[in-house]
Amino acid sequence: MQTILTIATSGPALHEFTRSVARFVEDSGVDEALLTLFVQHTSCSLCVQENADPDVQRDLQEFFRRLVPASDDPSMRWMRHTTEGPDDMPAHIKAALTAVSLSIPVAAGRLALGQWQGIYLFEHRHGRHERRVVAHLAA
Amino acid sequence: MQTILTIATSGPALHEFTRSVARFVEDSGVDEALLTLFVQHTSCSLCVQENADPDVQRDLQEFFRRLVPASDDPSMRWMRHTTEGPDDMPAHIKAALTAVSLSIPVAAGRLALGQWQGIYLFEHRHGRHERRVVAHLAA
Amino acid sequence: MQTILTIATSGPALHEFTRSVARFVEDSGVDEALLTLFVQHTSCSLCVQENADPDVQRDLQEFFRRLVPASDDPSMRWMRHTTEGPDDMPAHIKAALTAVSLSIPVAAGRLALGQWQGIYLFEHRHGRHERRVVAHLAA
Repeated sequence: MQTILTIATSGPALHEFTRSVARFVEDSGVDEALLTLFVQHTSCSLCVQENADPDVQRDLQEFFRRLVPASDDPSMRWMRHTTEGPDDMPAHIKAALTAVSLSIPVAAGRLALGQWQGIYLFEHRHGRHERRVVAHLAA
Repeated sequence: MQTILTIATSGPALHEFTRSVARFVEDSGVDEALLTLFVQHTSCSLCVQENADPDVQRDLQEFFRRLVPASDDPSMRWMRHTTEGPDDMPAHIKAALTAVSLSIPVAAGRLALGQWQGIYLFEHRHGRHERRVVAHLAA
Repeated sequence: MQTILTIATSGPALHEFTRSVARFVEDSGVDEALLTLFVQHTSCSLCVQENADPDVQRDLQEFFRRLVPASDDPSMRWMRHTTEGPDDMPAHIKAALTAVSLSIPVAAGRLALGQWQGIYLFEHRHGRHERRVVAHLAA
């Protein structure tokens, strides 16, 4: 079973979409299964992170912003792929450092997430984007 | 087929658990299959690494310690999520930089690991923890 | 269904092998499925990246070279695992920072990649290597 989940973004941030994934799983009626997510872009990515304190998401984003500054930052003058904007190549790098696909077991009809785990789209680009995540469920 | 593997940790380290995973696969009697591991925490993670020289694991851990210092380090004063201890937010970041899920093919009834590959739980936190990894096997 | 894809490398670079993967999927005759790739090494890795501008691949590699310098670089004197050469331990670290396995849905008989996505083997070592990637297809 497959579906496409779309997530509207407007700048660098972690967007939780655990509920959309959970709904897809629950609507399917599967009992034991494996849910795989795949993001169809190379400038945003996926992660599973703590969904209790919003500062975790803010600090994560801030860490990546400091690790991979925009290509117009003096420390990044070695970058060549700059025609799509100063946030583009850093977005590709941040995507390589995180995940393009995630697999989460389903047990007793529900995602087997830990207590504090949420599923996030990690947007690395500025501007508005409509992001597509393919969800594949195999019973 | 699913099971939960538990791994007791006591501070930052790589804990190999290849044998537990191999036993689960071999006991199942599958021939060709896919084994997926999913860690139910956001402050430890998974990796597949060389299991020959223990210095590889030590150097990996040391690299991550230097890349993401504790939040009481002067260079990390920008961190906000500090109430759970100086090792907590760095642990979330290290988890985002590594893997929450891994999929390993099973061929002829055995994990199709390369010659030097071992499966590790990468503990990023201090203190004692009992970590849970869901193993899902699909034939 | 499983196969082994082999990729010959000769130094740090991103090697696209999307076509080999696509051929395996198309030859199988599956309609809806999940394709999983697993690299049997700990000093190279996998990624999905933009395949339009070759500068993206060059900048990605350059970022990782700067983030994890060779072990004979003065900044890396703390490294202990150096007997296999100054590029070996950095290769293990780069592999931990990227992916050992990737899962890509197959829809209507084709890999559900985004428009600009290509599948790459990310070689982190110098010298010539023959790299093995296990491809597992589950319908």
